[in-house]
Amino acid sequence: MVKRLKNKYRLAFIVGDLTTTIDSDRIEEHGVDVIQINTGKMCHLDANLVKKALEHLDVKRLDLLFIENVGNLICPAEFQLGSDQRIVIISVTEGPYMVIKHPLSFIDTDVVVINKIDLSVAMDVNVTKLVRDALNINPNIKVVKTNCRSGEGVSKVIEALGL
Amino acid sequence: MVKRLKNKYRLAFIVGDLTTTIDSDRIEEHGVDVIQINTGKMCHLDANLVKKALEHLDVKRLDLLFIENVGNLICPAEFQLGSDQRIVIISVTEGPYMVIKHPLSFIDTDVVVINKIDLSVAMDVNVTKLVRDALNINPNIKVVKTNCRSGEGVSKVIEALGL
Repeated sequence: MVKRLKNKYRLAFIVGDLTTTIDSDRIEEHGVDVIQINTGKMCHLDANLVKKALEHLDVKRLDLLFIENVGNLICPAEFQLGSDQRIVIISVTEGPYMVIKHPLSFIDTDVVVINKIDLSVAMDVNVTKLVRDALNINPNIKVVKTNCRSGEGVSKVIEALGL
Repeated sequence: MVKRLKNKYRLAFIVGDLTTTIDSDRIEEHGVDVIQINTGKMCHLDANLVKKALEHLDVKRLDLLFIENVGNLICPAEFQLGSDQRIVIISVTEGPYMVIKHPLSFIDTDVVVINKIDLSVAMDVNVTKLVRDALNINPNIKVVKTNCRSGEGVSKVIEALGL
């Protein structure tokens, strides 16, 4: 997605993680600005942490800023970060209950990405049921199915975000 | 595991989850006592919630009590529940970074179960690396690899718990 967007928009990323820089390192390889926030023990980003990270970016020269939250489907849901749109990404490989067990993560979300759909048979997970669970929680959600390794569906995520 | 232990021990379960009873329903099918704690928005159990749940159990008549925490690898790590031993279960299908990204969940843990090892090839996840990551964080951890669907490794989990 970074590869597809970086020639069209001036991009930057704020990436939250407890202690590692695995995700930010991967994004940085594409030559875009990345600010890493390591939260230590904290299970989510908050607006204050984002504000501090913004001091390291020349925001006026950006078209798009992505904020990647700490990876859990519970705590981040309760903290508004000032974003225009919210995306939740789950993977089929996380099992059949990821949506139904985390309603708060879907209720205020604009786009839901269901990734690794190529592994639904191996996992015995019904993707249609995951989509239905998300729409039951919030009928206005745009749900996109992807296989990010092959690139399948990535253009639909970009479209769902109106980019 | 319930099936294997219920004839040897008087068992009960306390099961934490935000809003659903999916896990407790599955355990209850085995005819053992299960107390469901629905935390609503709260991302972990705490000792006070466990204490309240214990009021519904005849503890003196039990040999073993399992407390299944809310499913996230960040927040539960910080709250002692009074258990004798702690187990963390991850699945190969959650990806290659589940251990390295959540050091606090492994530092005070006795047993780590790595489940769904049959899907390591489909997932392109190196199980040996996951084991090494866990032992790097805490060399005293007992790591057991399982495929719970087939039953592979389950007896080793029981053994690791000294049961």
